[in-house]
Amino acid sequence: MKIAVLPGDGIGTEIIAEAVKVLKALDLKFEMETAPVGGAAYEAAGHPLPESTLKLAKEADAILFGAVGDWKYDKLERALRPEQAILGLRKHLGLFANFRPAICYEQLTHASSLKPELVSGLDILIVRELTGDIYFGQPRGKRTATDGAFPGAEEAFDTMRYTRPEIERIAHVAFQAARKRNKKVTSVDKANVLETFQFWKDIVTEVGQQYPDVKLDHMYVDNAAMQLVKAPKSFDVIVTGNMFGDILSDEASMLTGSIGMLPSASLNSKNQGLYEPSHGSAPDIAGQGVANPLATILSAAMMLRFSLNQEAAAQRIEAAVQKVLAQGLRTPDIHSAGTTKVGTAQMGDAVVKAL
Amino acid sequence: MKIAVLPGDGIGTEIIAEAVKVLKALDLKFEMETAPVGGAAYEAAGHPLPESTLKLAKEADAILFGAVGDWKYDKLERALRPEQAILGLRKHLGLFANFRPAICYEQLTHASSLKPELVSGLDILIVRELTGDIYFGQPRGKRTATDGAFPGAEEAFDTMRYTRPEIERIAHVAFQAARKRNKKVTSVDKANVLETFQFWKDIVTEVGQQYPDVKLDHMYVDNAAMQLVKAPKSFDVIVTGNMFGDILSDEASMLTGSIGMLPSASLNSKNQGLYEPSHGSAPDIAGQGVANPLATILSAAMMLRFSLNQEAAAQRIEAAVQKVLAQGLRTPDIHSAGTTKVGTAQMGDAVVKAL
Ligand SMILES: CC(C)[C@H](C(=O)O)[C@@H](O)C(=O)O
Ligand SMILES: CC(C)[C@H](C(=O)O)[C@@H](O)C(=O)O
Repeated sequence: MKIAVLPGDGIGTEIIAEAVKVLKALDLKFEMETAPVGGAAYEAAGHPLPESTLKLAKEADAILFGAVGDWKYDKLERALRPEQAILGLRKHLGLFANFRPAICYEQLTHASSLKPELVSGLDILIVRELTGDIYFGQPRGKRTATDGAFPGAEEAFDTMRYTRPEIERIAHVAFQAARKRNKKVTSVDKANVLETFQFWKDIVTEVGQQYPDVKLDHMYVDNAAMQLVKAPKSFDVIVTGNMFGDILSDEASMLTGSIGMLPSASLNSKNQGLYEPSHGSAPDIAGQGVANPLATILSAAMMLRFSLNQEAAAQRIEAAVQKVLAQGLRTPDIHSAGTTKVGTAQMGDAVVKAL
Repeated sequence: MKIAVLPGDGIGTEIIAEAVKVLKALDLKFEMETAPVGGAAYEAAGHPLPESTLKLAKEADAILFGAVGDWKYDKLERALRPEQAILGLRKHLGLFANFRPAICYEQLTHASSLKPELVSGLDILIVRELTGDIYFGQPRGKRTATDGAFPGAEEAFDTMRYTRPEIERIAHVAFQAARKRNKKVTSVDKANVLETFQFWKDIVTEVGQQYPDVKLDHMYVDNAAMQLVKAPKSFDVIVTGNMFGDILSDEASMLTGSIGMLPSASLNSKNQGLYEPSHGSAPDIAGQGVANPLATILSAAMMLRFSLNQEAAAQRIEAAVQKVLAQGLRTPDIHSAGTTKVGTAQMGDAVVKAL
């Protein structure tokens, strides 16, 4: 079992160190190899995703990823900015299926912006398509407009697109996930405006016929953004495209009030996967030892489950995380009166102890 | 002063009737002419935006619009569906500047999903570009993929695009609006992925230099969707493209808990405008006399202010709405213990009385 460990920028190094600590405490044999990615790789090798890092990632069974990005790279040309590393990994490894759970931990319910009765027990799974849509569509760039309101003007453009097999495979992923949960899929589209998402809706409907035991409904993306606020618990699995998924999964994770707790997985058709926390690199608190490592530790659990076929070990980690929460240990982001404030490393140590 | 009155579908007729009642109670001379739009127009004339309705709208100084749409039209080909009327009006009249306030009314704070301290006093203005972006970009349709993950497969596609003058004019609108408010503009983009929104960001930055008194910041759309949940009061004016604006303005309006209270305005460069409630046609409660007419009545006030140059009359309406709220009158959507439940017409009558 080979794991590529890519800590990245900001708090990435600190949180990955804790996840690695937890993995090492399991009685399993992993080969782990670390490589730079994002801004750190740009500093070290002039590119956010150096050839050697990409090669390591491709050869590994799984990638444990920290976070990338820092304001100081904002002025670089786009191809050299840290985020390009994550886009490059998704594309080169074909990591089309992104799983982003939005779970509200019972002990952390109070931390949500929403009233407790609306989020208590919340458990949504967002299945976001991750290698298609307007993220990678060609052509894109700048040109002179030939039609529209200002023909002759300078314009920038991008192409949104989905092929039938891309939609089919992510739909299957969503329906299969729903079967193991509450058997409901909400497909989010904008079929009233976009050709791409009328096609999306039609194909998801077709695929749905193969899953008569799963209830399928369709929702426009604007309405989904509203319903997530109004009645988040009405959702089970949400499946949507890359762009809408980017927006809705972040909205949903923030609803829980504990984004520092939320893992994510991005898989390809061979179950190779990239595992990373749902939150970002938080350069403002980097190096202070206060970041919450639990999302990364829970990402490592997802990695054991989905890519390394170690369900028992995954459950051990998840149980250990529950235990430290029950013990009242909290990093500053989830701290509240009556609980014990701990730092990044203390939290990691506590999880190891709880294993 | 000529007003085109387009009630549309669902609750559209009922809520427009109340707004017209209020307008007639002012001592002003309007010429008002009613025409069918949306599903109602499809039934009457075979098209959601018949030529005669479009002609009336073009000749009017302002359009008072109810709502369009009903599930029963879902199976029609897209060009005949009710929503096409609203897209057609925007495009043919060049209504590029959409103003969507998200205001939390003090008396209705409890109705929000969010904790009261997060939304009490909330007052955000979303300025959404309304005639560009992926809504109208060409080419769009279906074709055979020539590259990507599945060359040779059937694919659907759309084009996102913005020209420089389109971005400049909406940026000016946002900065000017901010000057009359708290002097802060947040431009929402996805410059880390999209060429269109890197261009957007660059141009908004340029335009911002002409408004040194207004603070400008930039936020990615996924982060904006989160920050709206986390700290909505940190925003003043949000300016963004058509697609992101569609999603974020709905999210923001739902945060207030009183979407039945929120008006909107869509203006062109001659200050001709379309005024409509932020909510939809709600076919589930149509014909029952329970819909909240206040968003439409407040839209009529915006119409007086922006297109008809009748600031005093606009303020009279707004004050009257405040008064009926203070009197404790509530339609079912905003009703709570200790207030008086009223129907659509009673609410309209109360506003007239309060004028
Ligand atoms: C960093 C960025 C390119 C990325 C995305 O938009 O996909 C991020 O927001 C995410 O959701 O992983
Ligand atoms: C009905 C639909 C086409 C429209 C849009 O997407 O713009 C609506 O959602 C809106 O926001 O006015």
